Amino acid sequence: MPASKPQPDAHSKVLILGAGNFGSCLADHLGDSDHQVFLWSREADVVSHFNQHWKNLRYLHEHDFSKNVTAVGPDLPDASFINKMDVLLFAIPTQFLRLNLTILNRSLPDKTKLPLLIFVNKGIEIGTNALTLEIIADTCGSDVAKAATFISGPSFAKEIVRRQPTSVSVASFTEAEAKKTSALFHQPHFRCYTGSDPIGIELAGALKNIYAIAAGMSDGLGYENNTRAMIITRGLAEMTCIGTAYGASPLTFLGLAGVGDLFLTCSSSSSRNYTVGYRLGQGEPLDRIISTLGSVAEGVSTTKGVKTIIENLGVNAPIAERVYEVLYTGKATKAAVRELMDLPASRELELPPTAGGPAQQLMEKLGLQGN
Amino acid sequence: MPASKPQPDAHSKVLILGAGNFGSCLADHLGDSDHQVFLWSREADVVSHFNQHWKNLRYLHEHDFSKNVTAVGPDLPDASFINKMDVLLFAIPTQFLRLNLTILNRSLPDKTKLPLLIFVNKGIEIGTNALTLEIIADTCGSDVAKAATFISGPSFAKEIVRRQPTSVSVASFTEAEAKKTSALFHQPHFRCYTGSDPIGIELAGALKNIYAIAAGMSDGLGYENNTRAMIITRGLAEMTCIGTAYGASPLTFLGLAGVGDLFLTCSSSSSRNYTVGYRLGQGEPLDRIISTLGSVAEGVSTTKGVKTIIENLGVNAPIAERVYEVLYTGKATKAAVRELMDLPASRELELPPTAGGPAQQLMEKLGLQGN
Repeated sequence: MPASKPQPDAHSKVLILGAGNFGSCLADHLGDSDHQVFLWSREADVVSHFNQHWKNLRYLHEHDFSKNVTAVGPDLPDASFINKMDVLLFAIPTQFLRLNLTILNRSLPDKTKLPLLIFVNKGIEIGTNALTLEIIADTCGSDVAKAATFISGPSFAKEIVRRQPTSVSVASFTEAEAKKTSALFHQPHFRCYTGSDPIGIELAGALKNIYAIAAGMSDGLGYENNTRAMIITRGLAEMTCIGTAYGASPLTFLGLAGVGDLFLTCSSSSSRNYTVGYRLGQGEPLDRIISTLGSVAEGVSTTKGVKTIIENLGVNAPIAERVYEVLYTGKATKAAVRELMDLPASRELELPPTAGGPAQQLMEKLGLQGN
Repeated sequence: MPASKPQPDAHSKVLILGAGNFGSCLADHLGDSDHQVFLWSREADVVSHFNQHWKNLRYLHEHDFSKNVTAVGPDLPDASFINKMDVLLFAIPTQFLRLNLTILNRSLPDKTKLPLLIFVNKGIEIGTNALTLEIIADTCGSDVAKAATFISGPSFAKEIVRRQPTSVSVASFTEAEAKKTSALFHQPHFRCYTGSDPIGIELAGALKNIYAIAAGMSDGLGYENNTRAMIITRGLAEMTCIGTAYGASPLTFLGLAGVGDLFLTCSSSSSRNYTVGYRLGQGEPLDRIISTLGSVAEGVSTTKGVKTIIENLGVNAPIAERVYEVLYTGKATKAAVRELMDLPASRELELPPTAGGPAQQLMEKLGLQGN
């Protein structure tokens, strides 16, 4: 293991909840920086195998993990364990977050002694269409939600464990928490850029998957570079309009969690969402794609939730609408593209006002001022 | 040739000046829409060959051009010819524009009878660092510059002639001119999105080539997807900061001429600027790359001009600075990347004020209000 530079807060105790691709690679990264890392998995065989071989049975198979990482589980750590931690990092899929936070909340110290709380999950909750911030507020209260920090950006886990230069957005309502998170993670090969728009970061992370499906469809149908660039750029304009109507800052979508992750997700066959779109474009039916994909393509469920959000906001999002119709009403991909091309000419970007959207209500609920 | 829908201003007479890749593909596109198109080339053999075979001797060799296009030249058309035109489209490389506009200005009708004036060249003038708008104002006066419309966006010519779905930004200070240009060009396979920030569109078109060189370097050095996404996104942040300090709107960089063209240019080996960067990353010296490239990579000269612009504006643009050092001071690509990675952590985007930059002076010179 290569030597690491000392950190501003070296030798922090970090509990990472969730031993999937992203949780595992961040555990390795922080272990490499000489932090003491505990990686929780709900699977007993993953825990025991990791602690014997420093390998993850399910993800990143070939990687030898940092010896500074210890696996814990399968039960969730208790209050006495959690109270020793400087950092809790949640890498639990959004659909399981509410349940786990409800249990973990009982073990959290009072709000004056909270550890650094970092969330890296993406997407919106099926059924409620809630953002992670709302799930945190519902289960752990406003003080915990206000202190939460979000990490997002163009970051394939398999490249992070090989120390390929990577960069992420780190966003929190509380600048001090964003700076602490950046200081914890920042290395020459893992650059952190801070911001203060966690709602925008969350929306960008969820919405981009819809446009990755659209970009995949275009490639699957045999369209070329000009067309993919159009879909990505017009998709970004849609994301920005939806985000702005929601109450996020339009400039967040210009950053690493917006255009950066959109670009990565739309231009690599390593992306499951892109792959779903590509195979749809080639004419495969959705149920067969899902049954053979081997893992969940989050954009498929996100599209359903976003359809409702778009309708509630009254935003014009023709690409997202067509992706919804292909996924859920059986529209042919070719017909969807033809409809998009037949739309009348328009101005490039007409942003709705930022104030008055759901973000403002959420921030008022947390006791924060709107943008 | 497939049948075309009638246009709002069908059967316009269009003179396209410049028979390179982009001028030629737009001539074909407008011919296909039943306009009467004249394509000027300064090369006699190109003119005669085109009018016999509807093929361009130098560009897009395999394409059979629309029979509605007639080549003219090698002399510049005279006043009696120009006065019959509804549209003049300038597809002359930026470095030759001042000379040609100086000659053509003598043939332009007075300002109440100007044809639609469209510019598709990109880049800044070597030596003066002038934008096309300034070159137009210097040679033809403010009224002509104010009426000019700019087309830019992710659009490889070889895909346009095959009717691959393509989209562009159409920008003018004068909304009516932007709408007329959009109506002239818009087709289901060629979508036009209008805007009112021609200075931002011009800057985006010039700046993107610097970041295409940087993205190519990263790939040439063997870095992977995370790193390329970082360079593109941080490059976009730099472009936006430079543009905003200049006086353009930050949101222009989120559009087709910004992120759209950046994405296309940074992710295709069809881009000459990307190729220059890639070969530099692989360790080839610049002079050998330039001597074997066969055509000009505009980003190489743009980088020099932009270096001066950045210094005058006082903007922090670390990627552009490193590209300059690699191209002009012999810095090794590996060292340039290491320096970028070693920069301290920062906030993601801190935009300078839009007012007070060179754009404001230019707009005042044209008799327009600043942003």
